[in-house]
Amino acid sequence: MDSIDINCDLGESFGQFIMGNDDSVFPYISSCNIACGFHGGDPLHMENTIKKALNHDVQIGAHPSYPDLAGFGRRKIILSTDELKAAVKYQIAALQGMVKSLGGELKYVKAHGALYNTIAHDMTEAEVFLTAVNEINPNLAIMGLAGSPFEEFTRKFGFNFIKEGFLDRKYQDDGSLMPRKEEGAVLQSVQESLNQFKMISENEKVGTASGKLIPMKVDSLCIHGDNPLAEEILRKIKHSNDFINVKSFQL
Amino acid sequence: MDSIDINCDLGESFGQFIMGNDDSVFPYISSCNIACGFHGGDPLHMENTIKKALNHDVQIGAHPSYPDLAGFGRRKIILSTDELKAAVKYQIAALQGMVKSLGGELKYVKAHGALYNTIAHDMTEAEVFLTAVNEINPNLAIMGLAGSPFEEFTRKFGFNFIKEGFLDRKYQDDGSLMPRKEEGAVLQSVQESLNQFKMISENEKVGTASGKLIPMKVDSLCIHGDNPLAEEILRKIKHSNDFINVKSFQL
Amino acid sequence: MDSIDINCDLGESFGQFIMGNDDSVFPYISSCNIACGFHGGDPLHMENTIKKALNHDVQIGAHPSYPDLAGFGRRKIILSTDELKAAVKYQIAALQGMVKSLGGELKYVKAHGALYNTIAHDMTEAEVFLTAVNEINPNLAIMGLAGSPFEEFTRKFGFNFIKEGFLDRKYQDDGSLMPRKEEGAVLQSVQESLNQFKMISENEKVGTASGKLIPMKVDSLCIHGDNPLAEEILRKIKHSNDFINVKSFQL
Amino acid sequence: MDSIDINCDLGESFGQFIMGNDDSVFPYISSCNIACGFHGGDPLHMENTIKKALNHDVQIGAHPSYPDLAGFGRRKIILSTDELKAAVKYQIAALQGMVKSLGGELKYVKAHGALYNTIAHDMTEAEVFLTAVNEINPNLAIMGLAGSPFEEFTRKFGFNFIKEGFLDRKYQDDGSLMPRKEEGAVLQSVQESLNQFKMISENEKVGTASGKLIPMKVDSLCIHGDNPLAEEILRKIKHSNDFINVKSFQL
Repeated sequence: MDSIDINCDLGESFGQFIMGNDDSVFPYISSCNIACGFHGGDPLHMENTIKKALNHDVQIGAHPSYPDLAGFGRRKIILSTDELKAAVKYQIAALQGMVKSLGGELKYVKAHGALYNTIAHDMTEAEVFLTAVNEINPNLAIMGLAGSPFEEFTRKFGFNFIKEGFLDRKYQDDGSLMPRKEEGAVLQSVQESLNQFKMISENEKVGTASGKLIPMKVDSLCIHGDNPLAEEILRKIKHSNDFINVKSFQL
Repeated sequence: MDSIDINCDLGESFGQFIMGNDDSVFPYISSCNIACGFHGGDPLHMENTIKKALNHDVQIGAHPSYPDLAGFGRRKIILSTDELKAAVKYQIAALQGMVKSLGGELKYVKAHGALYNTIAHDMTEAEVFLTAVNEINPNLAIMGLAGSPFEEFTRKFGFNFIKEGFLDRKYQDDGSLMPRKEEGAVLQSVQESLNQFKMISENEKVGTASGKLIPMKVDSLCIHGDNPLAEEILRKIKHSNDFINVKSFQL
Repeated sequence: MDSIDINCDLGESFGQFIMGNDDSVFPYISSCNIACGFHGGDPLHMENTIKKALNHDVQIGAHPSYPDLAGFGRRKIILSTDELKAAVKYQIAALQGMVKSLGGELKYVKAHGALYNTIAHDMTEAEVFLTAVNEINPNLAIMGLAGSPFEEFTRKFGFNFIKEGFLDRKYQDDGSLMPRKEEGAVLQSVQESLNQFKMISENEKVGTASGKLIPMKVDSLCIHGDNPLAEEILRKIKHSNDFINVKSFQL
Repeated sequence: MDSIDINCDLGESFGQFIMGNDDSVFPYISSCNIACGFHGGDPLHMENTIKKALNHDVQIGAHPSYPDLAGFGRRKIILSTDELKAAVKYQIAALQGMVKSLGGELKYVKAHGALYNTIAHDMTEAEVFLTAVNEINPNLAIMGLAGSPFEEFTRKFGFNFIKEGFLDRKYQDDGSLMPRKEEGAVLQSVQESLNQFKMISENEKVGTASGKLIPMKVDSLCIHGDNPLAEEILRKIKHSNDFINVKSFQL
């Protein structure tokens, strides 16, 4: 690998409620997942985020969520099959139309929060999600947890799959992320994240909480926009010769 | 004129909160304006309404609103130019993508409630609205109040305009509708609505509250889905020889 | 028993979205559970419902819910202990203050929908709920499913418990209600509901789906306001000599 | 005057959306206006803010708003008289009950954002607001714009009035605040705010945008929690001998 994609969840502000620090990370990333209004992101924040992505030549993905503004999409909301399918279609269609209206093209979809975690392992719900994407645009790629059951399921469904890893989160031995409520779930220093970046991008391995080294082959690495260290980490990756290049994944 | 379009605002239910009686009017109308989630209409109700429209061969329009679920879009919400434009784009894009996913085609846009009334007379806000539609899809037609300043403004902007009249509302001498809060604003008998239908569709005139007869040339007549007389009115129009045919407007 | 309480969930409309037919049942019931804004019920509908209850001399309970307007409170929403406690306190305090402002007195609390079902059997969540009520007003009574684990738990906690049964729902052999999605869950005829009323109020027994007769000792019987048969059932109970009197439970 | 009250709008966060920096100002203020859920502030943020206020011995006021989360209560929402009255009652009752449950006492009400500005000058809407407060608790004080028509109106209505001034906002010659969208509306340096504090608290005068000095007699000075200079300004006021003491207003 001589380059790797870095993605960030952006456009999650709602009205006067500002989430994350989008402007500080745009110069350093190659893909962004834009909120679609259901966990954050109102139409104006979405529109402005699309414009910034196009200005920075950053690839755009849709970031649909359970309908859960109050819980920021981090809670599992029990929806019927039809409700979930319609909710995902609505969100992707809205963002896709807005991206197109500004001269861009929607490239992929990455589920947000609890929906991301659910479909990584629950193939019944994964099928509803993929059916929704397929009905709106079968040419979109799907970004999801590298090595999860969802990866193989998505390929069999007929989509390109973008294997995602995490730059600032601690892994467990089975390749899943340490849950946010546990101590140490988010890497606490710039150096730790840089080490994880290097290990994954150069060696296709990652260290785990127990001290093991497990395989971790990814197409894209996520950094969280509300991580206060994000800008420094990203700047060092971009401007130092110690790291491989950041570049959009190719489909 | 040997045929006329009849349109109805549909898909306005929200979750368990049911609005109107969509199923009873679908067999009789030729166009429907589907809510887009901002005054009513969640993704599932939207999806189901699109399917019914396609089954009944009823033409589909988008029915965007100010963001105002609590006020059902009947209150003027003061938005910045950018907020309004983004809100309208988001709603149309969402519905358009869903319609396309089900094999249909979105044909036109009709603003809802307070937004409809505002842009009929306020050309600054009308321009924001039309710019939004234009950015999403310049081939859509615009439905609006027949004879209003918005009609001419829309044509100059470059859109096809569908002149709309009302089957179950009382007119004032200047061609505007009597406000809902005034007594007599909604016609109270089947016969009155049938008379108004006949007068507009055959003679291109309408009687007003003061007893005058004014010109009223329209392409489409609206009937309200929550009017308890709607089904009976529509059935009589369809099955009696006294009336001209109901057929979608041609663009 | 020479009288029994009948309660109904009321005040659940939201803005222009009307839920149930409150006016038709008020003359016949002795208690009402008023929505507090989280599954339905905005401040104005709450205020107007309180006034009607006071006019009809109907006892008032609070009807708090998970925060879930889109799902009408019928979905389990996963909240932290602190979130749930604060949400329940907020809702009861709001309604209690409004009732007091109109010269009435809040008497009891009955959880709504998924929260009702959860605390009937999950004593961890029940404890959070009761703690919330206790912090707002320890003199309130608690209405809940007769015979459920929640009944004993509530008494031990120190509250008066109002044992609730259902007039228009089919029971299962273990005393729980047949889930709404199963056929036959809601009694389909006036006569069935009248029979169930008689059986419970006179014999303290109820017939189940499997044909058994099980003990069912209750203080209050619920009828659903959106049941189209509700008014007729209630009128017959009130005006026929075949039934015992409807009267508020005594604490 | 040998002491003055300083108040701050707090508890405005919503779920994961954090607004302002409440913890940094609590040690320095004497009163706080807590959001009630309609422009910001969900039940848990309200509960936690109440606890902090009680811990810091900071007096508590309710901060009701138009129902407008998307606009953070800064937009005028057109409500009927009954809607507005019920909305204000609901919010105050909710907060008052929660404060009482934690051993505190609600002391006053200050309207938020567009509602504050509207009732400062529109006595029809002011009357609705005061009627609402009066129905919930006639012993509450009302905080509002010093010198506005609302001040006299409130006293005549029978309430204690707390005259409010602003520590970090530029005044106009008529005693009103320069609108937020104009340049210079928010004071840009610590020194300017300290000067304004001194001028108002010691001399009962304030400098205006045009360079005039106008009378400004207040009981409480507001500082905005999202002002990045707030903590430094407040610390200097507290720890320097140049300024009079900060202490809750007395009713």
